[in-house]
Amino acid sequence: MKVAIQGERGSFSHAAAHKLLPRAAVVACSQSRDVFRLLQRGSVGAAVIPIENSLAGPVSEHFDLLLEHNVFVQRELRLRIEHNLIAASGVKLGKIRRVLSHPVALAQCRSFFQRHKTIVAEPFYDTAGSVKHIMKEGLKDAAAIASRQAAAEYGGRVLLSSLEDNRQNFTRFFLLRRQRVVLPRANKTSIAFSTKNVPGALFKALSVFALREISLSKIESRPVPGKPWEYVFYVDLLVGPEARATKALDHLAEISEFVKVLGIYPAGT
Amino acid sequence: MKVAIQGERGSFSHAAAHKLLPRAAVVACSQSRDVFRLLQRGSVGAAVIPIENSLAGPVSEHFDLLLEHNVFVQRELRLRIEHNLIAASGVKLGKIRRVLSHPVALAQCRSFFQRHKTIVAEPFYDTAGSVKHIMKEGLKDAAAIASRQAAAEYGGRVLLSSLEDNRQNFTRFFLLRRQRVVLPRANKTSIAFSTKNVPGALFKALSVFALREISLSKIESRPVPGKPWEYVFYVDLLVGPEARATKALDHLAEISEFVKVLGIYPAGT
Repeated sequence: MKVAIQGERGSFSHAAAHKLLPRAAVVACSQSRDVFRLLQRGSVGAAVIPIENSLAGPVSEHFDLLLEHNVFVQRELRLRIEHNLIAASGVKLGKIRRVLSHPVALAQCRSFFQRHKTIVAEPFYDTAGSVKHIMKEGLKDAAAIASRQAAAEYGGRVLLSSLEDNRQNFTRFFLLRRQRVVLPRANKTSIAFSTKNVPGALFKALSVFALREISLSKIESRPVPGKPWEYVFYVDLLVGPEARATKALDHLAEISEFVKVLGIYPAGT
Repeated sequence: MKVAIQGERGSFSHAAAHKLLPRAAVVACSQSRDVFRLLQRGSVGAAVIPIENSLAGPVSEHFDLLLEHNVFVQRELRLRIEHNLIAASGVKLGKIRRVLSHPVALAQCRSFFQRHKTIVAEPFYDTAGSVKHIMKEGLKDAAAIASRQAAAEYGGRVLLSSLEDNRQNFTRFFLLRRQRVVLPRANKTSIAFSTKNVPGALFKALSVFALREISLSKIESRPVPGKPWEYVFYVDLLVGPEARATKALDHLAEISEFVKVLGIYPAGT
């Protein structure tokens, strides 16, 4: 089986795909849109995408793409994000003058740069890509911040691990499939809906869940592309494929512009 | 007066600061955290920050920083984002083999790259920074995608304008001040609150507005740093400094962990 991810090999998405589907061959795409396209047309059997980081927030583009495509969330995974300092073999910490990584990763390792005042943080487009770059160019004064997987992928050495300021750094990933299969023990439902533009519309929409004692674990509003300041709501419900969930969603459909079930899946641990 | 922005001179934040405070001197900070710190300690009189893009979604970090700091939203501005192809003087379109810009800007100019198959999109950490880079290095085979302001700032030439696929591309900016001043005609209120972790908590929270016929224009949930999967809600209310707003907020405080008013300001047009 083939699984598509966005980003370079050795990225956190690659690590997540490896955990979710240990035997699948990874297809690395540079654009998220291509990941969804490959899955929808059946060129790959699955896709793994990050949806939210506990510090940085939602991956907004992936919400839009979930809405646009005929794919289904089958599982979720919470992956702890550990940042490592990675350099070419033989490069010592004392020789390093600059450290490349994605701006979000650099910002999450502030205390490392405070302890090493002579080292400059250099923004790069991708964490795993920064390891690939220092290895390819054979840089002797530079290191990268990325996953352990990236070091293994490109033959870099981990000089320091756990560089992140906050250990409570998790990313939530979705495993997407083309088929609408609900696994046993599914206890979570992700939906998207858009309300009519009238006062109290969101309040009414949420009442369909409150009245049936269904808890929300998350709500997100996203602008509708091309219609500035109109919103689609993304909600996670702590409910599986039960009758009260079906009834709540039917009720929601009555008072909404549209409702789409993105997936019904077992909550990740 | 001095106004702090995040990013290079010539960024869209710079353009927004210029619109909001035409005579202020711009202080460019590389980190958003520094923008807030400078304002809180009074080193600058104001700050201008992007809070949401109509296509890319919220600037999550700025929500966290608004919550942490003692600053107040005084105005909002909606700026149309126009992407321009910028190169050094004398560089012709036919000679360009790569185009540098922030990944979000590159993704918003997909049709340009489809029309010019021999040109490669190269991710760079910043839009204005990509113009600064091609000018400083004197690149003859490269261009950047950025604002017209960036071209003026670094002496680049605009070869093509309106490269963006979707003209409905706006960014919403906040003007922040240290003093809690509410301008005349203020008709919008931004708040943050956290609910108790019980079923139906958000529904109850929103009822304080629904019962008083106060409309929400936006809702966002953000993870609480260090407490994965606990959320703070950010809500924009279409109401100014009126009695019913005060009553609704008092009511919300009764049933919430905390409530913070981020600002009361005239809605931007």
